[in-house]
Amino acid sequence: MSVNLYDLAYTVENGIRQSAEYAELKKQYEAVMADESARTMFHNFRDIQLKLQEKQMTGQEITEEEVQQAQKTVALVQQHEMISNLMEAEQRMSVVLGDLNRIITKPLEDLYGTQG
Amino acid sequence: MSVNLYDLAYTVENGIRQSAEYAELKKQYEAVMADESARTMFHNFRDIQLKLQEKQMTGQEITEEEVQQAQKTVALVQQHEMISNLMEAEQRMSVVLGDLNRIITKPLEDLYGTQG
Repeated sequence: MSVNLYDLAYTVENGIRQSAEYAELKKQYEAVMADESARTMFHNFRDIQLKLQEKQMTGQEITEEEVQQAQKTVALVQQHEMISNLMEAEQRMSVVLGDLNRIITKPLEDLYGTQG
Repeated sequence: MSVNLYDLAYTVENGIRQSAEYAELKKQYEAVMADESARTMFHNFRDIQLKLQEKQMTGQEITEEEVQQAQKTVALVQQHEMISNLMEAEQRMSVVLGDLNRIITKPLEDLYGTQG
């Protein structure tokens, strides 16, 4: 891998740090972490999502009940304005990262006919 | 997302297209595609991988027979020099993309790794 390609990646990294989306995400994340009830609710939410994700990755069955529990938790955290703001900021950052990833892996898509 | 960030991503994309790893991958992929027996074996291998991945993602059971079929296919493709070369080229390209991804998503790791 040429040094050049690494250099370019670091330039993108720096661009992300300076982006409006990252600034907003950082702000919302720090706000949630600074508020005890928001932080606790966020961590609980994350634990549930982690368990589901782990099941999905390891091929374990996710029950209808678990999906419903997760959806209820999502509904609950969404009602907390600080967490709702953080999730919105995460989603916006995520869209940017998805766009960047789509652009960067385009050469493989061209070669294989599918996203790299 | 600033236009600048997109521009940077396109610069990385262009850098990948010009990299030694991509040139080698393209060469090996085209060699396999040009050889009927290699192409068939490679497509068969990819189909099996995709089927297993899909099952894994959707939480379906993977049968013993399927695992065996996958192993045999891996063994067979590793014996075929053209496919073996392609898989090596894929692995090298994959390492580069993994490095780039790790660099680019570092800002998020920094944010969530602190107190998350």
